Amino acid sequence: MDINTFVSQSLGTWRSQRSGHNLAFQHFEEVRSTIEISAVDPDSPEVLTLCEKSNIDSALITSPFRMQWAGESDWDDEEEEDSNLSGDCILVPVPDTDANSGQLLRSQGYAETIPAIGKYHFNDDIFTLITSYDRAAAEERIWFGTENVRFRVSLIRTAGGTGVVTASFASEIRKLTNT
Amino acid sequence: MDINTFVSQSLGTWRSQRSGHNLAFQHFEEVRSTIEISAVDPDSPEVLTLCEKSNIDSALITSPFRMQWAGESDWDDEEEEDSNLSGDCILVPVPDTDANSGQLLRSQGYAETIPAIGKYHFNDDIFTLITSYDRAAAEERIWFGTENVRFRVSLIRTAGGTGVVTASFASEIRKLTNT
Repeated sequence: MDINTFVSQSLGTWRSQRSGHNLAFQHFEEVRSTIEISAVDPDSPEVLTLCEKSNIDSALITSPFRMQWAGESDWDDEEEEDSNLSGDCILVPVPDTDANSGQLLRSQGYAETIPAIGKYHFNDDIFTLITSYDRAAAEERIWFGTENVRFRVSLIRTAGGTGVVTASFASEIRKLTNT
Repeated sequence: MDINTFVSQSLGTWRSQRSGHNLAFQHFEEVRSTIEISAVDPDSPEVLTLCEKSNIDSALITSPFRMQWAGESDWDDEEEEDSNLSGDCILVPVPDTDANSGQLLRSQGYAETIPAIGKYHFNDDIFTLITSYDRAAAEERIWFGTENVRFRVSLIRTAGGTGVVTASFASEIRKLTNT
């Protein structure tokens, strides 16, 4: 697995079923959402701007893509308004020379709203992304169960990496039609 | 990471918070339980019997252990009676010569009540176990977030491996005292 194959397999619309675990209180959270992943032109202004802000030479990037997510329409209005339940961002991979690892530029971080740069690597066909923020670090693992099923485990760690605050697990199923 | 280190780090009592996803119906299931993992004498009758039933030379095994699990006492009586919510089994690793992979004998399978033999390997410090049954296959990935936090993703696939039927995610936190 390399980043171009991974992005290519990820393109499409996905129905996501996500469970969040608050580890200290053993609380559960359940979220259903739709995720749309689409290719973005490497020469588009939004990609070039993100490269520039991140001090990355745009000649080094590959397979930029957009991710959009939205809570399902059967959720109540208040939750629909929650900014965590809908949004979009641009993601730009910058592979290392060995092709198994690299950087991922993101126009918005999970925990913050400023651009973020994460480090990714592939191992056993699992994409692992670690993004450090000022006061926390996000660790994400994504892999395909089948061509049309993706899994994603996301951890939020304390900044030093010593503790795990929350963990979530998403099962993502490709929507084969737009009905 | 090798199997002896993995088993050694796993010994203890864990509070587990597990979310199950039924992929076809997007149903959620939530289970809280306690898991106890303890070392077992390699020469004990139960280990030797399991080796014999599995046609494995007991000289090849390492770090056998017992896993016991029980639903929390604040669950209602009916669920406590559910056989999925409590039980125990003996697990016996049989490493390959390369130390990164091997077989795992299990006195009871997840999906069936007869002994099962799975194949495991380590990659990126993730323990992956694949166990094939007559009409299904179980795929499990376990890794440590910290010394005292373990994560476990379990998939049940159709026998051919083409489809994923259910997926579950458990966050397991070590109980540091027995209060």
